[in-house]
Amino acid sequence: MDGEGYTHHISRQFNQELEAVRTKTLEMGGMVEQQVRDAVESVLSLDSQKADDVRSKDHDINHFQTVVDEECERILALRQPTASDLRLVLAISKIVSDIERIGDEASKVASQVIGLRDEVSEKRGFVEIRHLGAHVGQMIHDALDAFARMDTDQAIRVAYEDNKVDSEYANALKDMISIISNEAEGADRILKVIWALRSIERMGDHAKNIAEHVVYLVKGLDVRHVDATEMADRINKN
Amino acid sequence: MDGEGYTHHISRQFNQELEAVRTKTLEMGGMVEQQVRDAVESVLSLDSQKADDVRSKDHDINHFQTVVDEECERILALRQPTASDLRLVLAISKIVSDIERIGDEASKVASQVIGLRDEVSEKRGFVEIRHLGAHVGQMIHDALDAFARMDTDQAIRVAYEDNKVDSEYANALKDMISIISNEAEGADRILKVIWALRSIERMGDHAKNIAEHVVYLVKGLDVRHVDATEMADRINKN
Repeated sequence: MDGEGYTHHISRQFNQELEAVRTKTLEMGGMVEQQVRDAVESVLSLDSQKADDVRSKDHDINHFQTVVDEECERILALRQPTASDLRLVLAISKIVSDIERIGDEASKVASQVIGLRDEVSEKRGFVEIRHLGAHVGQMIHDALDAFARMDTDQAIRVAYEDNKVDSEYANALKDMISIISNEAEGADRILKVIWALRSIERMGDHAKNIAEHVVYLVKGLDVRHVDATEMADRINKN
Repeated sequence: MDGEGYTHHISRQFNQELEAVRTKTLEMGGMVEQQVRDAVESVLSLDSQKADDVRSKDHDINHFQTVVDEECERILALRQPTASDLRLVLAISKIVSDIERIGDEASKVASQVIGLRDEVSEKRGFVEIRHLGAHVGQMIHDALDAFARMDTDQAIRVAYEDNKVDSEYANALKDMISIISNEAEGADRILKVIWALRSIERMGDHAKNIAEHVVYLVKGLDVRHVDATEMADRINKN
């Protein structure tokens, strides 16, 4: 084998390694998307069996993160990537961290089922959970899609959606607090609803984080501490 | 200059770069420690000026994270560190992320002052905030100290303290919910206290994360998804 062939071989193997870790990240993302759907559904249907399933799968997601991180570290140590390859590895490490945190929040949502089952007839706040859950579920899907397709326009849309989710959450929270303020009885139950809403809202933040990592990956820009409009501006100027 | 001298020079410069980024991380940590103290103090003294100061400094902390991350990326691209140097760079990148999130939570704690000032005489829950705030403040200090001294024993102690903080938080939360359940009036105020307590509790989680990154840094072990006892076991077996 001549020198060029060898280099080509190394390079191809390296690309396969990068592709494998990228695929695994998307696989983990798909798993967490399902977790989020199941967690919201477990609350809406007061299904404690489904809630237990969600919580038991958290372990698998944690394991996924460990495996992907180890692979990223191995690539950094042995392949010493630079430029866009380095950015891909660093972005993946951050993306799996956000995916893992979305999984944590899904478990927290599922945990609320226990306290809610006591009063099956009382379903105030459920419309809000369903609505916010669907919205954030879509955001997570879009953020992962932006990563899969290296699409910064999609990333910008996710950042804008997070603003809408934040305001939907704020409105829902206001309604729940007004319920508590008017009738003390059942306050602990409404708090469960509030915890669920809050966890769902945080998932939206993590979806936005993933979108920001995509921008870093594709454009090399750090847009973590700017709002959606500023993010769009910086990308367009770049 | 002979070859050996050159290598030595490169190596010395590299060490200086690593030391500089490590020092900057500790500096950022010290800044956030102060933020946490000020945030808790602003609530306890209902000082909205101090609360504004805390929130305005969040920008500086975000900037710190950006700078440290850029420096880490530069080191990875140009120096292509391996083994313990690589671990140091990766651990620092994760540690600054947790420090930044502690800063976010400090801002959230400070944000509760506005709603609490309305009823100056009503200070239920303040003892709990003071107590949990002091405990978590110490945890953050100890986690940063574990990082500064590469001390895994200190890291283990931080992980154990997080268990205590979690249970203190659970007790405080139970008391607050019982207040809401017995008297609807002032529920919105008690919720502010609950948000503050919850943010402080999350700071403790981040302090534990920092401790886990220290273990990774010193021992090369990923102990992110295990409890304090398991963490101690794995370190001792290693």
